[in-house]
Amino acid sequence: MVNVLLTGFEPFDKDAINPSWEAVRSLDGWRLEGATVHARRISCVFGAALRELDAAIDELRPQLVIGVGQAGGRSEITPERVAINMDDGRICDNAGCQPIDEPVVAGAPVGYFSSLPIKAIVRDLRAAGIPAAVSNSAGTFVCNHLFFGLMHRIATRPVHGMRGGFIHIPYLPEQATRLPGAPSMSLDAVIAALRIAVATSIEVREDLRETGGQLH
Amino acid sequence: MVNVLLTGFEPFDKDAINPSWEAVRSLDGWRLEGATVHARRISCVFGAALRELDAAIDELRPQLVIGVGQAGGRSEITPERVAINMDDGRICDNAGCQPIDEPVVAGAPVGYFSSLPIKAIVRDLRAAGIPAAVSNSAGTFVCNHLFFGLMHRIATRPVHGMRGGFIHIPYLPEQATRLPGAPSMSLDAVIAALRIAVATSIEVREDLRETGGQLH
Amino acid sequence: MVNVLLTGFEPFDKDAINPSWEAVRSLDGWRLEGATVHARRISCVFGAALRELDAAIDELRPQLVIGVGQAGGRSEITPERVAINMDDGRICDNAGCQPIDEPVVAGAPVGYFSSLPIKAIVRDLRAAGIPAAVSNSAGTFVCNHLFFGLMHRIATRPVHGMRGGFIHIPYLPEQATRLPGAPSMSLDAVIAALRIAVATSIEVREDLRETGGQLH
Amino acid sequence: MVNVLLTGFEPFDKDAINPSWEAVRSLDGWRLEGATVHARRISCVFGAALRELDAAIDELRPQLVIGVGQAGGRSEITPERVAINMDDGRICDNAGCQPIDEPVVAGAPVGYFSSLPIKAIVRDLRAAGIPAAVSNSAGTFVCNHLFFGLMHRIATRPVHGMRGGFIHIPYLPEQATRLPGAPSMSLDAVIAALRIAVATSIEVREDLRETGGQLH
Repeated sequence: MVNVLLTGFEPFDKDAINPSWEAVRSLDGWRLEGATVHARRISCVFGAALRELDAAIDELRPQLVIGVGQAGGRSEITPERVAINMDDGRICDNAGCQPIDEPVVAGAPVGYFSSLPIKAIVRDLRAAGIPAAVSNSAGTFVCNHLFFGLMHRIATRPVHGMRGGFIHIPYLPEQATRLPGAPSMSLDAVIAALRIAVATSIEVREDLRETGGQLH
Repeated sequence: MVNVLLTGFEPFDKDAINPSWEAVRSLDGWRLEGATVHARRISCVFGAALRELDAAIDELRPQLVIGVGQAGGRSEITPERVAINMDDGRICDNAGCQPIDEPVVAGAPVGYFSSLPIKAIVRDLRAAGIPAAVSNSAGTFVCNHLFFGLMHRIATRPVHGMRGGFIHIPYLPEQATRLPGAPSMSLDAVIAALRIAVATSIEVREDLRETGGQLH
Repeated sequence: MVNVLLTGFEPFDKDAINPSWEAVRSLDGWRLEGATVHARRISCVFGAALRELDAAIDELRPQLVIGVGQAGGRSEITPERVAINMDDGRICDNAGCQPIDEPVVAGAPVGYFSSLPIKAIVRDLRAAGIPAAVSNSAGTFVCNHLFFGLMHRIATRPVHGMRGGFIHIPYLPEQATRLPGAPSMSLDAVIAALRIAVATSIEVREDLRETGGQLH
Repeated sequence: MVNVLLTGFEPFDKDAINPSWEAVRSLDGWRLEGATVHARRISCVFGAALRELDAAIDELRPQLVIGVGQAGGRSEITPERVAINMDDGRICDNAGCQPIDEPVVAGAPVGYFSSLPIKAIVRDLRAAGIPAAVSNSAGTFVCNHLFFGLMHRIATRPVHGMRGGFIHIPYLPEQATRLPGAPSMSLDAVIAALRIAVATSIEVREDLRETGGQLH
């Protein structure tokens, strides 16, 4: 039995919902190709987020972990390329903390690359009619914090064969109604995108050599 | 029997689809509150578009006409406030014509305001979870051309009680997959939005006094 | 002796400066080709703005009037194509008033086109290395209010041979330092742009037939 | 005698100028606080860029190296936080090469943080009226390539006391005239910004603890 762990975040920054959890929760229990998806809700709190992630990994021993988070203002599904060892909060987390220029893990490397096939995921999302692009920065808030912690866990205390990464998603339309001009994506499309991301990650072991680069 | 005319455009600028027609066509024959919706596909051609609109109005004698067009790059449903008497093509229309600074109708006024309750439509769309905003410019291409022609017809050769206006809609997600960074909206949401726009237009005779203004 | 009237606005929306007045004031007294430029500062107040404009026109009997205003968020110098007869304040003016969907002048036409050679101005600005584009909406705040009032005055109580229009300008860099991500333009470039706009307006009586249109 | 090395790039992507070189060249020979600035022009070519950088470092033995590059579409001066070990060309370099998902330096770490005081630089730029922000991604093209190579050199074959980093700059106004809607910054402002970046880098050894983070 293969387990897949999907994490979404609780709401933050005074919002009532977080689309990452709304999408992830709907996939809890989904089975595909001999794998079972488990959804877990993570606190939007530096430190606590990593402890919750660790506990879920210890419990499930998953072969695949995909963190999902909201990237308000983006219009596409964006698999992240790289996690950096840096907490620098533009706002406070849900516990009122705002670390500035502190490492996620003291003494750990500057960065880790995702071990998801991010180019193949983007290709398959676009083929399914869902806007997608590789992102080269997951920011410096709790999303990057979780992503870095995940990759550091894989690098230092691995579950056998485990791969992982992070995917940012847009606002939901209902959030964008309160934010004039903000792009959004329907919950159905986000859920369909995560299904594709899971399936492609299970299937594709070596990523495509297709450009997903940015000039800056 | 009350008729409602919805128009969508054929594809243009080398695109294979136009979301305005995809959405409008699905509402052909829809009945609500004693009214029947009729969908018509309009050529993306200066001049011909107005002749087709005129013929559809003569045939249907509608009490409500809503032109719908694609506004690639916008993230919201945008009811237009004002049509201007100006054709100025940034690109050629589907017949290869690119008028520059020519009136839509020689001798006609500089502009007409929509007679749709645009503020109420925006309010009702947002309440339904669909991003929306008033727009103060419909551009100077065939969308504005059709909008101006419609309002000039209403002003000069009215069908009894006829009101009209224009609504711009975003790209569909499948279009945005080929346009990195472009916002989009699902076809389902666009169709739901047009249903609301029709129902609100039938129901609300005097528009709300809620701000929809822009500083510039 | 030919007089040219340039107007700029006082600061609004809690800002300490308004780049339109900073730029315009520096051109007060400038002479070119037999013309003298007069700068006037206009209140950012519905109604009062038009009374001040009227008084300046009565005093100076200018042959050319160019209103200048700040368009925060734009990156280019944007000569406006059309003024609309609509006050719809997204915020309050400096007297605390926020008209919603009221005419600038009751009973006046829906719109007026600029009588400046807006295409030629854009061409000459670009040739001088200054980013510029035609704009098809001056918004619905005090800038459009002044622009509409100016064009209505020209249409109904003309000074002999007087032409007029409106030009929006970006934030200054010093304003943008407080607005992360906002584009800006140096005061020197804005002043150079206004010099070109005046010179081109004096010289070019019939505008170019070059596209400045927008799809929407 | 302390040497400071500033690098700018040759034009790329069919452009006739590169603002990074235009700005950097004007500072060649500038002396401040016992230091002398040396400007070097770098090829926009993967691999060759690093060889040219190495040669300049060997020649000058600088205590401070700042790479400068164009970030078309940005509106601010953006000191980069992190270089990543990834070449992924969205376009070809000037030698026609387009590496995809290849390391800058095989076997080197995933990333390096800038050793410039990026927060202090942003603070000092804003105080001088120049829009600025920390950036969390230098992209995956030759700019990031140079930045990574620089930081790897510092980590593995240091010149005594040498610090380094990378700063992205906007288009010049004259470039933006051909790119409708693109933000830009005057050459004077960019040059002033680089003077501040050099002075602040010399003066500030330990960076500020002020947030420069991004949510994503």
